Amino acid sequence: MILEREFSVGDVPAVMWTPEGAGDTTPLVLLGHGGGTHKKAPAMTGRAAKLVEQNIAAVAIDAPGHGDRPRSDYDEREIAVMQEAMAKGTPVGPIVTRYNADLARRALPEWQAVLDHLGRDAVGYWGINMGTAIGVPLAAKDHRIKAAVFGQFWPETLEEPARGITIPIEFDLQWDDEHISREDGLRLFDAFGSKEKSLHVNAGRHKELPRFEADSAVRFFQRHLTP
Amino acid sequence: MILEREFSVGDVPAVMWTPEGAGDTTPLVLLGHGGGTHKKAPAMTGRAAKLVEQNIAAVAIDAPGHGDRPRSDYDEREIAVMQEAMAKGTPVGPIVTRYNADLARRALPEWQAVLDHLGRDAVGYWGINMGTAIGVPLAAKDHRIKAAVFGQFWPETLEEPARGITIPIEFDLQWDDEHISREDGLRLFDAFGSKEKSLHVNAGRHKELPRFEADSAVRFFQRHLTP
Repeated sequence: MILEREFSVGDVPAVMWTPEGAGDTTPLVLLGHGGGTHKKAPAMTGRAAKLVEQNIAAVAIDAPGHGDRPRSDYDEREIAVMQEAMAKGTPVGPIVTRYNADLARRALPEWQAVLDHLGRDAVGYWGINMGTAIGVPLAAKDHRIKAAVFGQFWPETLEEPARGITIPIEFDLQWDDEHISREDGLRLFDAFGSKEKSLHVNAGRHKELPRFEADSAVRFFQRHLTP
Repeated sequence: MILEREFSVGDVPAVMWTPEGAGDTTPLVLLGHGGGTHKKAPAMTGRAAKLVEQNIAAVAIDAPGHGDRPRSDYDEREIAVMQEAMAKGTPVGPIVTRYNADLARRALPEWQAVLDHLGRDAVGYWGINMGTAIGVPLAAKDHRIKAAVFGQFWPETLEEPARGITIPIEFDLQWDDEHISREDGLRLFDAFGSKEKSLHVNAGRHKELPRFEADSAVRFFQRHLTP
């Protein structure tokens, strides 16, 4: 049984999934969605269902310019440039890195307002791709995040905040990622200051992250958030 | 409830752990122990207990020159050289690589005789360190092995057999291994010909492989050996 409740904090639409009978002591994980998707995309509802099954609650918000939120002119321009690169087959890394760094600056106070609103001071964070671009600076700044699952992003903008992160980390990479080189992926994993950090690399391309990694992430949160 | 039965195949002492009510269709995993230990070392009985809990049987044998088996003059010489290197703090990799390649040549027909004896034609293999030095050439040669967990070994002698291996693999490395460099560890993982292969890297030194990796290995065998 999974309870879904939509709400908003300021003008940020959010959704929360809880197991039946959940209370203030039920562990909570923030879910950061990927680029071009939204708070209720299948990857989010799927992860929420797996968490709730283990008696962990989950909350997602639409990132700036995503889901039910308006795109700024800047958003439109960056998305056009990115789509052009995709179509041409030229590297998207430099564009995504730059655009997501801007999204992260906008999203950070929003996630912090959500945590204030929920009155929680010890939560997990789980986000891959753009979810990592936002989650790494968030976890570096907000110490209410006690454990995080990240992965599949370039190191340029995230290495510095990652160095300041010391919470337990699980980090996913794809060994045959056509966008992120092995060297770049490993460099970001290496940067985390965490004493306990695990890297999970799987054979396959960017979008082929195996589903069993979601089960692994849930177990990671069980280890770190469940009393 | 775990049933333990000791037996031998030729002059190779073996031990088998089975769940209650196990039969010919109960999945089976071969456990290869590490250098200097034996078939009933705590790492082996611990892994066996975790497997049996999930209704998977396990079998271990003493490697040549280990446990209840006599050491040859060659074994004694190599062990002395290795202990000297350890004491001096000089690299052990070249010695372990050479000695374990010899042990693997001796152990391969022994493992194959155990499989013949048990009449099994679809099993898993789980061995780290020396267990990998023996398991990689075994899995390359004997196609009764359908899934394997390996890790923490140098690439020189194992890259070639690894290239011929196409079964699902889970591979463990330590990010701060004082004996095996990151580059060497990643090179061996990269060599496997498997379409499905997962690398688990954890922060920590050679002997600090986290216990949760054993749980992960058990789930890996559940995915691949359980109907």
